[in-house]
Amino acid sequence: MEETFAEVWLPHYVSYGETDAMGVVYYAEYIHFFERARGAMCRENGLGYGKIEEAGYMLPVREVECRYRSPARYDDHILIRARIVEWRRASVRFRYEIYNDDRTKLLCEGMTLHAVVNREGKPVPVPTWIKEKLSGTSVDVKNA
Amino acid sequence: MEETFAEVWLPHYVSYGETDAMGVVYYAEYIHFFERARGAMCRENGLGYGKIEEAGYMLPVREVECRYRSPARYDDHILIRARIVEWRRASVRFRYEIYNDDRTKLLCEGMTLHAVVNREGKPVPVPTWIKEKLSGTSVDVKNA
Amino acid sequence: MEETFAEVWLPHYVSYGETDAMGVVYYAEYIHFFERARGAMCRENGLGYGKIEEAGYMLPVREVECRYRSPARYDDHILIRARIVEWRRASVRFRYEIYNDDRTKLLCEGMTLHAVVNREGKPVPVPTWIKEKLSGTSVDVKNA
Amino acid sequence: MEETFAEVWLPHYVSYGETDAMGVVYYAEYIHFFERARGAMCRENGLGYGKIEEAGYMLPVREVECRYRSPARYDDHILIRARIVEWRRASVRFRYEIYNDDRTKLLCEGMTLHAVVNREGKPVPVPTWIKEKLSGTSVDVKNA
Repeated sequence: MEETFAEVWLPHYVSYGETDAMGVVYYAEYIHFFERARGAMCRENGLGYGKIEEAGYMLPVREVECRYRSPARYDDHILIRARIVEWRRASVRFRYEIYNDDRTKLLCEGMTLHAVVNREGKPVPVPTWIKEKLSGTSVDVKNA
Repeated sequence: MEETFAEVWLPHYVSYGETDAMGVVYYAEYIHFFERARGAMCRENGLGYGKIEEAGYMLPVREVECRYRSPARYDDHILIRARIVEWRRASVRFRYEIYNDDRTKLLCEGMTLHAVVNREGKPVPVPTWIKEKLSGTSVDVKNA
Repeated sequence: MEETFAEVWLPHYVSYGETDAMGVVYYAEYIHFFERARGAMCRENGLGYGKIEEAGYMLPVREVECRYRSPARYDDHILIRARIVEWRRASVRFRYEIYNDDRTKLLCEGMTLHAVVNREGKPVPVPTWIKEKLSGTSVDVKNA
Repeated sequence: MEETFAEVWLPHYVSYGETDAMGVVYYAEYIHFFERARGAMCRENGLGYGKIEEAGYMLPVREVECRYRSPARYDDHILIRARIVEWRRASVRFRYEIYNDDRTKLLCEGMTLHAVVNREGKPVPVPTWIKEKLSGTSVDVKNA
């Protein structure tokens, strides 16, 4: 039986503060976009990241990768897709793709790897309830 | 006859990248929120700021003020109200209020004053078509 | 006897990430500059803001104002002057001026007003040791 | 004969605006640190990135990678090492390591790959004068 994973498509209008003097979105801002979509995915699955922290767990980022394909510009309406692609014993991997408005052009793609740690920062096995909550639902965010 | 002004209410989920080590939204991020809402207001009135620039005008900020009333935290769903409150000969003033989810608590309020300049950066009278476009409509942004 | 106040001149090279599509420093970034200089002033006076927090006090911002005079651009070497201009019973006011490299042109000026609060967020009188540490020294930061 | 490459060690104090609600530097901020150090390296070698742009070339980022080893916190004095590790025909690769104050602990390491493009955004061979300027000098930035 195939494993399924939660995903989200988050719409976003590029703000002026996200652009740089080249006239395009600054490269670190895409890393923010990843986080926004990751957070939306958790929230839409009923497990806002705040709730994970309240339960005593944190998901600090261990690795990030991003490949820039085509630039986004001010006021562009972009779509940020985030999904979990791998659960390990004590970590979880997300993948991201960012598209233009009609999903015909890939602007950027990336990955983050997160440890699962307790309040003391010690790596712990992924709790089953986190894994269950974040599995199998695909959501288009309508009301950001 | 009373003058009316465009306004917008933009919903926003606070991201992790917008918080600081005090556990609340970093003070400069509210200034970004102002810009997002200002941009949304222009867009919703059919005059995205990009169009204003294409027509040869820019609205650089001359002054900003912000008063912080109550902190916003990670994943809070906030509402950013932006509206034009004054047209001068060669400038325009926006006011902002940021509220919590059910609009019962004012988190912050602020103001920006913008010059209207041409491509050479020289102040020019506000074009009538800009003023007309940005007058009199109140919009709740549903799909950010 | 005239009261004297601590001040600092912090040099800074404008990074690409601080610029926007207008080719100049984005307006919210100056608010970051204020914080960097404020922090440098505390540090140079032997009272890093971290130490203030360790002692159980925080200085959350209540108000910020900024007037933009002339834009800074990528790689510009700017100087951020920060100084305390007023101690109140339970708050403190800083003023800022940002200059170009040879201090001949004022780029921007601003103000922040900070409450002094305890760990519970309750306003408290400014501790004497904080006031004493942050009085009377002017520092040019050489090694940022 | 061994090829040598320019490098820089840029000191930096972590600002409050660079931290997040976990109490540590937000993961996208390290990507800003990379850019600051990259820019300092160009500048210290007499070839500020602005000059490269004036000459009609741009170095847009195609890929970024970052591995987070140990968190940096508010007011930490960190050192950002940037160096060119590979020249290709029409691209250049930088590597970065960020250390704590006494260089005993690696906080983070990363990589950026940049295309070399002309004003029309078309990839072009790396100009010899750029390569020559950015080869072989190691600099400790004293006065940031």
